Amino acid sequence: MKIGIIYYTHGGHTQEMAEQIAEGIKSKDIEVRLFSLDDQLDDNYLNDCVGIIFGTPTYVATSHWRVVEWLTSNKSVKLGGKLGGCFATAHYAQGGSDSAIMSIVGVLLTKGMLVYSGGAALGKPFIHHGPVALDAEGTHYEEAKKMFTIFGERFANKALELF
Amino acid sequence: MKIGIIYYTHGGHTQEMAEQIAEGIKSKDIEVRLFSLDDQLDDNYLNDCVGIIFGTPTYVATSHWRVVEWLTSNKSVKLGGKLGGCFATAHYAQGGSDSAIMSIVGVLLTKGMLVYSGGAALGKPFIHHGPVALDAEGTHYEEAKKMFTIFGERFANKALELF
Amino acid sequence: MKIGIIYYTHGGHTQEMAEQIAEGIKSKDIEVRLFSLDDQLDDNYLNDCVGIIFGTPTYVATSHWRVVEWLTSNKSVKLGGKLGGCFATAHYAQGGSDSAIMSIVGVLLTKGMLVYSGGAALGKPFIHHGPVALDAEGTHYEEAKKMFTIFGERFANKALELF
Amino acid sequence: MKIGIIYYTHGGHTQEMAEQIAEGIKSKDIEVRLFSLDDQLDDNYLNDCVGIIFGTPTYVATSHWRVVEWLTSNKSVKLGGKLGGCFATAHYAQGGSDSAIMSIVGVLLTKGMLVYSGGAALGKPFIHHGPVALDAEGTHYEEAKKMFTIFGERFANKALELF
Repeated sequence: MKIGIIYYTHGGHTQEMAEQIAEGIKSKDIEVRLFSLDDQLDDNYLNDCVGIIFGTPTYVATSHWRVVEWLTSNKSVKLGGKLGGCFATAHYAQGGSDSAIMSIVGVLLTKGMLVYSGGAALGKPFIHHGPVALDAEGTHYEEAKKMFTIFGERFANKALELF
Repeated sequence: MKIGIIYYTHGGHTQEMAEQIAEGIKSKDIEVRLFSLDDQLDDNYLNDCVGIIFGTPTYVATSHWRVVEWLTSNKSVKLGGKLGGCFATAHYAQGGSDSAIMSIVGVLLTKGMLVYSGGAALGKPFIHHGPVALDAEGTHYEEAKKMFTIFGERFANKALELF
Repeated sequence: MKIGIIYYTHGGHTQEMAEQIAEGIKSKDIEVRLFSLDDQLDDNYLNDCVGIIFGTPTYVATSHWRVVEWLTSNKSVKLGGKLGGCFATAHYAQGGSDSAIMSIVGVLLTKGMLVYSGGAALGKPFIHHGPVALDAEGTHYEEAKKMFTIFGERFANKALELF
Repeated sequence: MKIGIIYYTHGGHTQEMAEQIAEGIKSKDIEVRLFSLDDQLDDNYLNDCVGIIFGTPTYVATSHWRVVEWLTSNKSVKLGGKLGGCFATAHYAQGGSDSAIMSIVGVLLTKGMLVYSGGAALGKPFIHHGPVALDAEGTHYEEAKKMFTIFGERFANKALELF
C-alpha cells in the first residue's frame, strides 16, 4: 500500500512537517514518498497511491498558489476515490492556516477525493481540518511536530481500514 | 447497510431535495431514512448508518444555524469514520450555496467524517462540493432534481465500495 | 461616534477579548458598548453605530451558531454600510479560528457591511482576517490581548477616517 | 476618482463581466480601467485608485491561481485602505463560484482592504459575496449581465460616499 505527500515549500518548514507525517505513515508499514512541487512528480507512483496528502505554507491567509496551480493543471494523476488530507504551516495563529487548509479541501472534494482529517473523533490531539504548525508563536512549531506524526498514523490507519 | 439524511427545511425545498437524494440511495438497495431537525432524530438508526448526508437551505450566504447547532450539540450520534456529504438549496446563483456547503464540510471533517461529493471525477453532472438547487433562477430548481438523485447514487456506490 | 461589539461567550474568553478591543476603541475617543448575545441588545445604540465588531468562540472549527442565529434573525439593527469586523477565540492553532472568522465575514458581506481587519497593511502585528486568541497553546491567550487592543485602535482609526 | 478592475480570463467570460461592471462604474462619472493578468498592469493608475475589483473564473471550485499568484507576489500596488470587491464566472450553480469569491475576499482582508459587495442591504438584486455568472445554466449568463452593471454602480456609489 502506498501513500504520497505533495507539498510546496519555500523556507523548508512545510517540507519538514511533510517528513513528520511520513514518519507516522511508515510506522504503519505503508510505503510513503514525498514530492516537492519544485521537483518532477512520479505520476505512476502517485496513481498507485490509496491516499495523497497536500501540504502548503500559508501566504496571504490562504494556501500557496503553487498547490492550487498543480491541482488545476494536473491531468495525469487520478485523484478521484483516493483518501485526501491537508496540512499547513504559518507564522501566526491569526495567519489563516485553516483557511489555507479549507481552500485545498474544497478542491480535493471537487477532484472526487474522500477528505479526512480524523478531526476530534480520535481524541487528543484534536486535528480539526488538518495539522498546523506556527513558527512565530513561541515554541509551537517544535511542539507541533508530534501532532503531524500522529496525523500520519491516523491517515495511514484509515487507509488500511478502507482499502 | 443504512444511510441517513439530516436536514433543516423552512419552506420545504431542502426536504424535497433530500427525498431526491434518497431515491438515488434506494436504487442501490441501501436503506435510507430522512430526518428533519424539527423532529426527533432516531439516534440508534443514525449510529448504524455508514454514511450521513446533511442538507441546508442557504441563509445569509451560509448554512442555516440549525444545522450547525445540531452538529455542535449532538453527543449521541457518532459521526467519526462515517461517509459524509452535504447539499444546499438557495434562491440565487450568487446566494452563497457553496459557502453554505463548505461551512458544513469543515464541521464534518472536525467530526472525523470521510467527506465525499464525487466531484468532477465521475463525469457529468459535475458535483463539486455537493449538489445545489436554485429556486429563483429560471427552471433550475426542477432541472436540478435529477442531479440530486445522481448524487444519492454516487454516495451509495461509494458506501458500498468502502464498507 | 459609536461602535458596538456583539459577541457570544461561553466560558468568558470571548467576552474578555471583546473588552480588550473596547480598550483600543476608547483610546481613540470613540464610544463603545459591548453586547453579549445572552442579554438584550440595545437596537437604538447599535443602529447609531458606524461600525460593529462580532466575536465568537470557535466550536467544531467554525463560529458559534448563536452568532449566525442572530445575524440570520435580526431585522431591527441595520448593518448595511457600517464598518464590520470579526474576532475569535479557540483552544488550538489547528482549531479553526480563521474558518470561524471567515464564516462570519461572508455573512457581514451579505448584510452589506464594509468588512475590515487592517490585515498586514498596517505592519506588525499582522491581523489577517481578524484577531485570534488560543487558550490551550502555551501563553498565547495572555500574549494575544495586546493584539486585540491594537485591532480596536485600528478599527477605530478607520471609522474616524471614513465617517 | 479612479477604480480598477483586475481579472484573469481564459475564454473571455470573466473579461466580459468585468466590462459590464465597468459600465456601471462609468455611469457614476468615475474613471475605470480594466487589467487582464495576461497584460502589463499600470501600477501608477492602480495606486491612484480608491477601489479595486477582482474577477476570476471558477476552476476546481475556487478562484483561478493566477489571481492569487498576483495577490501573493504584488509589492508595487498598495491595496490597504482601498475598497475591494470580487466577482466570479462559473459553469454550474454547484461549481463553487462563491467559494471562489470568498477565497479572494480572505486575501483582500489580509491586504487591508475594505471588502464590500452591497449584499442584500440595497434591495434586489441581492448580491451576497459578489456577482456570479453561470454559462452552462440556461440563459443565466446573459441575464446576469445587468446584475454586474448594478454591482459596478453600487461599488461606485460606495466609493463616492467614502472617499
